[in-house]
Amino acid sequence: MTRVTVWAEYRQERRDPPVAAVYPDGIHAAIAEGLRDAGFEVRTATLDEPDHGLTDDVLAETDVLTWWGHVAHAEVGDEIVERIHRRVLDGMGLIVLHSGHHSKIFKRLMGTTCDLNWREAGERERLWVVDPAHPIAEGLGPGFTLDAEEMYGEHFDVPAPDRLVLISWFSGGEVFRSGCCYERGRGRIFYFRPGHETHPSYRHPGVRRVIANAATWAAGSSGDRPERRHRPEPSEAGSTRR
Amino acid sequence: MTRVTVWAEYRQERRDPPVAAVYPDGIHAAIAEGLRDAGFEVRTATLDEPDHGLTDDVLAETDVLTWWGHVAHAEVGDEIVERIHRRVLDGMGLIVLHSGHHSKIFKRLMGTTCDLNWREAGERERLWVVDPAHPIAEGLGPGFTLDAEEMYGEHFDVPAPDRLVLISWFSGGEVFRSGCCYERGRGRIFYFRPGHETHPSYRHPGVRRVIANAATWAAGSSGDRPERRHRPEPSEAGSTRR
Amino acid sequence: MTRVTVWAEYRQERRDPPVAAVYPDGIHAAIAEGLRDAGFEVRTATLDEPDHGLTDDVLAETDVLTWWGHVAHAEVGDEIVERIHRRVLDGMGLIVLHSGHHSKIFKRLMGTTCDLNWREAGERERLWVVDPAHPIAEGLGPGFTLDAEEMYGEHFDVPAPDRLVLISWFSGGEVFRSGCCYERGRGRIFYFRPGHETHPSYRHPGVRRVIANAATWAAGSSGDRPERRHRPEPSEAGSTRR
Amino acid sequence: MTRVTVWAEYRQERRDPPVAAVYPDGIHAAIAEGLRDAGFEVRTATLDEPDHGLTDDVLAETDVLTWWGHVAHAEVGDEIVERIHRRVLDGMGLIVLHSGHHSKIFKRLMGTTCDLNWREAGERERLWVVDPAHPIAEGLGPGFTLDAEEMYGEHFDVPAPDRLVLISWFSGGEVFRSGCCYERGRGRIFYFRPGHETHPSYRHPGVRRVIANAATWAAGSSGDRPERRHRPEPSEAGSTRR
Repeated sequence: MTRVTVWAEYRQERRDPPVAAVYPDGIHAAIAEGLRDAGFEVRTATLDEPDHGLTDDVLAETDVLTWWGHVAHAEVGDEIVERIHRRVLDGMGLIVLHSGHHSKIFKRLMGTTCDLNWREAGERERLWVVDPAHPIAEGLGPGFTLDAEEMYGEHFDVPAPDRLVLISWFSGGEVFRSGCCYERGRGRIFYFRPGHETHPSYRHPGVRRVIANAATWAAGSSGDRPERRHRPEPSEAGSTRR
Repeated sequence: MTRVTVWAEYRQERRDPPVAAVYPDGIHAAIAEGLRDAGFEVRTATLDEPDHGLTDDVLAETDVLTWWGHVAHAEVGDEIVERIHRRVLDGMGLIVLHSGHHSKIFKRLMGTTCDLNWREAGERERLWVVDPAHPIAEGLGPGFTLDAEEMYGEHFDVPAPDRLVLISWFSGGEVFRSGCCYERGRGRIFYFRPGHETHPSYRHPGVRRVIANAATWAAGSSGDRPERRHRPEPSEAGSTRR
Repeated sequence: MTRVTVWAEYRQERRDPPVAAVYPDGIHAAIAEGLRDAGFEVRTATLDEPDHGLTDDVLAETDVLTWWGHVAHAEVGDEIVERIHRRVLDGMGLIVLHSGHHSKIFKRLMGTTCDLNWREAGERERLWVVDPAHPIAEGLGPGFTLDAEEMYGEHFDVPAPDRLVLISWFSGGEVFRSGCCYERGRGRIFYFRPGHETHPSYRHPGVRRVIANAATWAAGSSGDRPERRHRPEPSEAGSTRR
Repeated sequence: MTRVTVWAEYRQERRDPPVAAVYPDGIHAAIAEGLRDAGFEVRTATLDEPDHGLTDDVLAETDVLTWWGHVAHAEVGDEIVERIHRRVLDGMGLIVLHSGHHSKIFKRLMGTTCDLNWREAGERERLWVVDPAHPIAEGLGPGFTLDAEEMYGEHFDVPAPDRLVLISWFSGGEVFRSGCCYERGRGRIFYFRPGHETHPSYRHPGVRRVIANAATWAAGSSGDRPERRHRPEPSEAGSTRR
């Protein structure tokens, strides 16, 4: 059974009444519920736990990590970021959600600013499937609609995704590459746009389906762990040193 | 259980003694054996059967089609090619093997000549994994070696693969993009280089592993079948027609 | 000086008053005007000329061909399509415009149906730059707006573009990958969405800028013409033939 | 005229006789000579200059930066790395050479370890063009051969290149993705493999041609500098909710 660790800051839910009203048990609880309902083995971890809840042991037992952060990216310890980074390159899946675009781990993996345009105006968002051959598109039909969300607009400063699965339309006039797949080392990474803290998007069946599909994809089989090192002996005996 | 149809010309094996010596029951039999051993439900089909063994019913019951052809590409009926093409775009996986690079179905899907350089000199071929995050790389370690194969050299006139999984080294001095993934419509396509008719490559465990991994990958879940048509009503009620 | 041949059907402009009102001299004349103003050497060619105006001599003297067709795709001769196809793979640039998505040459090069969703409702279209590192994005700022255009919506059944430069937003709720770059053989291909025959989009400065940028990109230097053939002698003397 | 700044460590050339014998004036001098001969405006900068020779003013006047480092990657100041990183995302081209794969700036931009396998055995290296549509392939024919070079072998832990132009063959049996193009922000990045300090590769006409072609490509036009920020006003007046 695929083991998912759902990580969230869990700050705004405890101090901002409008956020607490939507996610009284934390954003991670809503995401975890969706994944449990989809058949995953789920644990959660949050910023204020020791090691942010992400010890080596936890990561070693994690097939896919989901990441939601917003106001406290800077408080995530650099050594924890490096630990996650190593685990991703070694094969752990990573699903970065919404404002996690500015998390240290996502910027570390992308190598770019991951900046974007944004507006909090409760706009309608339509997510359209543009890659129906991809497993993350399973069961989504042509796409789905969120009645109210924060707007994220292009240009989104990330590497061109290895596969682009979803594009968002916003009623205010913008578009956004909303479902972006990357491979790095042995790991698979999915960036998924929705999920502002004042909207119940993580209870929406389309959003839940995407996250579950992405967890399945990100946990899939990979090649063996490469050994990259000095190779004093040629692979082809006798053919070098002419 | 994933259903694979293994297709081959089955001509050289019946008339050329050096080929019959290597594949007395046909190349398709060796490929099918490897897939059956890997747990797939396998049937075979060959050129000289009615409809080349690829009726609508057979294709409808096929999750992944593997294709080996060489001397008789021109004899494959255009209507059968169109039938396969529709099924691939609709979600059937396709694995094109070796000299199948010049098959009508592969050229139809790629849109290019699919030409390459070649030499029959029984050279050593080393296949190296360059994308260890990809499921087709599972269990291959850093790659594997074939003691004697036909050489295929760049430039290989195909679209840049959506994912490049394997690169071949040949003792005669050439390289080749040997394991190329494509998505087209809802279908997944894998081109895999080895398999000249005078070498027993389809009995090699590395080659068999790649084909089995590719069949699993190509048969994986996809998005729903898109309906592409006139849409007289806007998705966003009231917002058009100024 | 880069030589562009602007091709168009030139049928609706001669028989449909609403089209003639917008493009009295033909759509090709408006496209050609924009390219001449941008400094290109331009000629035009249309469907009802002998060889559709696309003789071997014309193609040999063409660095970039632009293609607009709509109601008469089926009347384009197959041998002319093959001629263009060979020239593109040999290095001629190709810019496919709007309803040219269903042209024989584009479908031939893409290998897919190139189907899409559409609606003629004079909707507002916003084109957003998503790849600011690309030369086709030069001078566009964040993008531009067309007040009224036909809608094209996803899923657009093409291979994932090698580079995606523009995404369109439509007021009716859809999105579309509007500026798609491909490399095939030695040739560069750009699909650009706007340009319905009843809207004056080919006089819009943003549209003209994109087409001019694309012509410059598509005409750029390439590698040498590959020779792909039997290579009886190994590249590496003495190292094969074990 | 395109302005290139050629950067190198310039340490081994001053202290290791075998290196000094090959590059008595430094590796940067050989690279700079090739670029000057190709018509570029070239300056050089080295590690032991103040700011490593890479002040804000120098970078502001640099269209393309080339980078060669090997034994002193750790001595490059983090603030200089951040300065270069910002300039690349803002549009400066970057060409990373050989052992520069382990430079801070390359790892920062790639987001991966950039590890690889290697062997110093003076092997023959054949570089093959796999993307003849790319401007970096201009004038290379099918590729070229270096009589003696250090071996770099896969797996090379970088993101799959946006365009793969060259693949290397080594007489010892390995292959390597030797010419890799990336776009990040508004910047273009090219990784090019050859150039061990004990081999005169930077005087080889093929290597010089690749570096010159890459400088032209990396300095080409780009889109405008995106402003990514809070956008309180919707793009589409009156069309949002509220």
